[in-house]
Amino acid sequence: MSGKKLQFGLIGAGRIGPVHAATVAFRLPEAEIAAITDINHEAAQALAARFSIPRIAASAAEIFADPKIDAVLICTSTGTHADLIVEAAKAGKHIFCEKPISLSLREIDRSIAAVNAAGVKLQVGFNRRFDSNFLRVRQAVAAGEVGAPNLLHIISRDPAPPPLAYIRTSGGIFLDMMIHDFDMARYLMGEEVEEVYAAGGVFVDPGFREAGDFDTAVVMLRFKGGALGTIDNSRKATFGYDQRVEILGSKGKISTENRYPNQVVVSSEKTVYTDLPLNFFMQRYPESFALELELFTKAVLEDRPTPVSGADSRVPVVMALAARKSADEHRPVRLEEVER
Amino acid sequence: MSGKKLQFGLIGAGRIGPVHAATVAFRLPEAEIAAITDINHEAAQALAARFSIPRIAASAAEIFADPKIDAVLICTSTGTHADLIVEAAKAGKHIFCEKPISLSLREIDRSIAAVNAAGVKLQVGFNRRFDSNFLRVRQAVAAGEVGAPNLLHIISRDPAPPPLAYIRTSGGIFLDMMIHDFDMARYLMGEEVEEVYAAGGVFVDPGFREAGDFDTAVVMLRFKGGALGTIDNSRKATFGYDQRVEILGSKGKISTENRYPNQVVVSSEKTVYTDLPLNFFMQRYPESFALELELFTKAVLEDRPTPVSGADSRVPVVMALAARKSADEHRPVRLEEVER
Amino acid sequence: MSGKKLQFGLIGAGRIGPVHAATVAFRLPEAEIAAITDINHEAAQALAARFSIPRIAASAAEIFADPKIDAVLICTSTGTHADLIVEAAKAGKHIFCEKPISLSLREIDRSIAAVNAAGVKLQVGFNRRFDSNFLRVRQAVAAGEVGAPNLLHIISRDPAPPPLAYIRTSGGIFLDMMIHDFDMARYLMGEEVEEVYAAGGVFVDPGFREAGDFDTAVVMLRFKGGALGTIDNSRKATFGYDQRVEILGSKGKISTENRYPNQVVVSSEKTVYTDLPLNFFMQRYPESFALELELFTKAVLEDRPTPVSGADSRVPVVMALAARKSADEHRPVRLEEVER
Amino acid sequence: MSGKKLQFGLIGAGRIGPVHAATVAFRLPEAEIAAITDINHEAAQALAARFSIPRIAASAAEIFADPKIDAVLICTSTGTHADLIVEAAKAGKHIFCEKPISLSLREIDRSIAAVNAAGVKLQVGFNRRFDSNFLRVRQAVAAGEVGAPNLLHIISRDPAPPPLAYIRTSGGIFLDMMIHDFDMARYLMGEEVEEVYAAGGVFVDPGFREAGDFDTAVVMLRFKGGALGTIDNSRKATFGYDQRVEILGSKGKISTENRYPNQVVVSSEKTVYTDLPLNFFMQRYPESFALELELFTKAVLEDRPTPVSGADSRVPVVMALAARKSADEHRPVRLEEVER
Repeated sequence: MSGKKLQFGLIGAGRIGPVHAATVAFRLPEAEIAAITDINHEAAQALAARFSIPRIAASAAEIFADPKIDAVLICTSTGTHADLIVEAAKAGKHIFCEKPISLSLREIDRSIAAVNAAGVKLQVGFNRRFDSNFLRVRQAVAAGEVGAPNLLHIISRDPAPPPLAYIRTSGGIFLDMMIHDFDMARYLMGEEVEEVYAAGGVFVDPGFREAGDFDTAVVMLRFKGGALGTIDNSRKATFGYDQRVEILGSKGKISTENRYPNQVVVSSEKTVYTDLPLNFFMQRYPESFALELELFTKAVLEDRPTPVSGADSRVPVVMALAARKSADEHRPVRLEEVER
Repeated sequence: MSGKKLQFGLIGAGRIGPVHAATVAFRLPEAEIAAITDINHEAAQALAARFSIPRIAASAAEIFADPKIDAVLICTSTGTHADLIVEAAKAGKHIFCEKPISLSLREIDRSIAAVNAAGVKLQVGFNRRFDSNFLRVRQAVAAGEVGAPNLLHIISRDPAPPPLAYIRTSGGIFLDMMIHDFDMARYLMGEEVEEVYAAGGVFVDPGFREAGDFDTAVVMLRFKGGALGTIDNSRKATFGYDQRVEILGSKGKISTENRYPNQVVVSSEKTVYTDLPLNFFMQRYPESFALELELFTKAVLEDRPTPVSGADSRVPVVMALAARKSADEHRPVRLEEVER
Repeated sequence: MSGKKLQFGLIGAGRIGPVHAATVAFRLPEAEIAAITDINHEAAQALAARFSIPRIAASAAEIFADPKIDAVLICTSTGTHADLIVEAAKAGKHIFCEKPISLSLREIDRSIAAVNAAGVKLQVGFNRRFDSNFLRVRQAVAAGEVGAPNLLHIISRDPAPPPLAYIRTSGGIFLDMMIHDFDMARYLMGEEVEEVYAAGGVFVDPGFREAGDFDTAVVMLRFKGGALGTIDNSRKATFGYDQRVEILGSKGKISTENRYPNQVVVSSEKTVYTDLPLNFFMQRYPESFALELELFTKAVLEDRPTPVSGADSRVPVVMALAARKSADEHRPVRLEEVER
Repeated sequence: MSGKKLQFGLIGAGRIGPVHAATVAFRLPEAEIAAITDINHEAAQALAARFSIPRIAASAAEIFADPKIDAVLICTSTGTHADLIVEAAKAGKHIFCEKPISLSLREIDRSIAAVNAAGVKLQVGFNRRFDSNFLRVRQAVAAGEVGAPNLLHIISRDPAPPPLAYIRTSGGIFLDMMIHDFDMARYLMGEEVEEVYAAGGVFVDPGFREAGDFDTAVVMLRFKGGALGTIDNSRKATFGYDQRVEILGSKGKISTENRYPNQVVVSSEKTVYTDLPLNFFMQRYPESFALELELFTKAVLEDRPTPVSGADSRVPVVMALAARKSADEHRPVRLEEVER
């Protein structure tokens, strides 16, 4: 592929599409977006104008059929991911797909099978792995900087819940929100989880209860090697996005603090205060969105494995399904119980 | 009792006895230690000399029989607490007893019954309640400073494990170590726990496994009102004592950092570093040991309830027994299951 | 100017040129670089290729002569700034020029006169004003968040000194390095300095002494309204770039901490440590370099004053000359003494 | 002196007297206060009752005449120190005297001469040296932990000014307040100051101006080896006591943060905040008051030099006089200029 830029087709011009378009435009001299499509034609047009994307395709199929396109960015809603992956794979396109591939393991397996059959590359958008804080923690654990990792805590709270209309089709807090943290748990510890115990609550909005969901949840993890962990999710932290991890190892502890817009401290007559932390993922994780795509592009261009594999996209869904089962049945659930 | 100082009898000259003796000597002008006893006569003598305690009693019975003594400080090993409380109560002495009263609920109930029958005051040594950090958190929760408390995390780790000989008779990590955190959970949240789910591990020393114990444990709590919590205990944090809590409420978050010997930061060619946190409870909690006794003395002198009641001394044992049962049976356990 | 993009000519492809080129390319949809020039033709070519700049001009004169070019970015060495500003102004180009315009007040005055005569806009590259920390401090002072500002401290230290060859022609620490801090002092306090007292030392490299310069300097400032301040510069802070300010006001204090690559803390057996702060201005201030150019572009497009005026570019040089005189004559020097 | 406790006579029952009385009572088993005197007899009586001091002397002379008394604690107002030291020395008593000995160098010299002639020990109450933060900084500098110390900054601000009546006889901000920081500068750097440049302002209360004093002052220091430093004093930091130092050395930086009553952080809907720092010296420095007396007692009992010598008590006064002269004459002043 030397001598020419990697040609992307962008499918989906919604919330995350523009983020990836910007990365390709501004940070990836070795790639460009050749075509865009969205069922909302105007959204596609607007994005094309903003980033000088030369062509607006009528459909994803049109993109898959374009022999000049090397890879696709699937940024549509979750329900469409599996079909798009299968079609893209059949067309021989490399695939970057937003998380999760599907809420159904069967669909995920079908997707991965198509990818494997076609021999194309697949990466799922677990962007937080590429945040400078979590990269640093992973690096420390891998290098033994805190010894053997024995205890993990993940705090992951949103500033405000999405609309209940969204919640009703979201798959629930474990599949929709904690899925990122399940990925993070495996990634940071470098080890698989064997069993989960989950409990939820509704403290933010009774609408969650009506939707059969929780707005707050805590999950205890047992890793295969015996290590223990917890994940805490809340749909509403009034002070903003709260994203922290801590690992206690046999030689020490590593932990991350929240990220703030500035390093200013004011000492007033009443309190010593700072501004609130960065409010949400768009403010907090821009760098990780860019880096994940940079690494995907490199993996394709240099024909190397992507940093988030097919299995990486599947296991967090298994964990989420086990967590849901645990909360429903009020008992610890082994991951193998939800495998079929 | 006006015009005269509260007369204490001190039973036990071991590790914590001298701490209470120092508090009476240096911080409580309204009290004095009239007599001391210890099965190790030399230890009693040394302590008496150091704090000018006028009399060394041959036994606890001698102290109970002394009509000039108003209150006793029971600082002996846990196995002796219940009998001493019962005897002290019969003798009409007010009682400050180290935690826990007993590892057996029956013994605790017998103790409390004796206390109630005699109409004396009882306080158990859950000193951490009186630490300036945890007082501040409790005050915030009580005042609604962070709204309704929905999520609690307690981190509580020792710098190094006690000898295995001690571990074998300690009652295990839940009764010996996490008992403080069970008390803290109820105290900080101002609410009772309904159910626990516990998991343990042996990461520090295989001797814990041989002793049928864990050196590391995580417990998930469900409070009666629905709030969720976790407690994490490790017998060994290489960097020193690690004592932190965090509460997420409907209006915000309150959390405490560890406490350090100084506020010095060094920026070197390799890292930006500080000294390690205060190493263990003697360095970390001196102030709380003094304050608990001050408040006990005041409660006796002013005939008011003590700040840690009989029930306060019992519930954490119930929680610890439930946690042990949960870990053994690998399922969530309601507190009522271990009540008899 | 509606309907068309602002056309920049970029003069100088050295260290800071690429930073501004990237900003125009990636963050300023309303502008583009139409031409570039550099006495090093290869550097100009490389930059043109990297950012798809359509034309490489043979000289600055060629850029000034191009009627399609609206504004120039002067990124050459300091000695060339004044002539380029005068020429650009005569040609009717708006001017963004790196700091300082000149080490000579006469040259600065000549430049400003040319700018005023031509009625073009001028902005000098005091980028730190646009850093999120310093913006926040300025905003606080302007809003009275800490009351009347009475005391100012600026810490500004580089990770390592430039080559002595550079030092010899740099104008010395006050003009070359502290100039940024002189600007910051006026900007943050919203007030002019009346008098300075400066002292220097050579602690880093004796070559500074041979060059008639200091590698470390402290200046005390007296503002017109009576407020006091200090600036501390060192050419070498082994731990990296050290950029902090603090203001004590009648109602409180506002201060900024250094900025770090991550928020990770490791508690080891020996220390509690973090990684080093961001190493130098390219890592620390990218955002401010982008914002200053964004605001310049807006000022031109909307025909409004630039956020750093001609006077803003002159006064810090006066302060630096006064500081140098103070250090030489070992006495406080009023700014009016170095005015002519 | 083996076998018997060091017998102190306490002269002055005002603000600091009770602090030292408490130290002797509670932390110094090897010492006791045998007698107390104060021109306010009731104050002496109250203190005697509180700390079981057996005897109230009618005058200092009565204490000096008591052969059982080994050492005196001079806690009276500054104007009386020199005479009391001379009398105590003549009587062969070891002397712990509050700072400063006098505002007059002549009086200080007379005092030191008397001490030397009598061969007794003298320690002046520069307590901050014994604070755990400043001890740690001193230790780091002495051990070369940050290399050669080149730049020093001391921030030292009170929460609120004393009454103007006190100010009028205080000797002014340099002798009354900054004297502690002058001592700290020499102590931390391990080096003498050669020259000072001082500037003051009146921002807190115009009464300071009427009293011929400043309420805010900044002093620049030049050490004999060339190192530079600044000291900043304000009589009013609305958020509380502000006591920090920072040293930049050839290998790194060491700095101290303020000290807080707890380590609690609240994240609210508007800000992330903590409680205010410890309000004033009684809250901030209790430990250092105890340690200085402990070390004095040890020095006497073991016949070793005291940790704060006669010279240590004199030099800060020279520095303060030079600073005052500098502010008055608006020029840098060498310390030798105020020596006579």
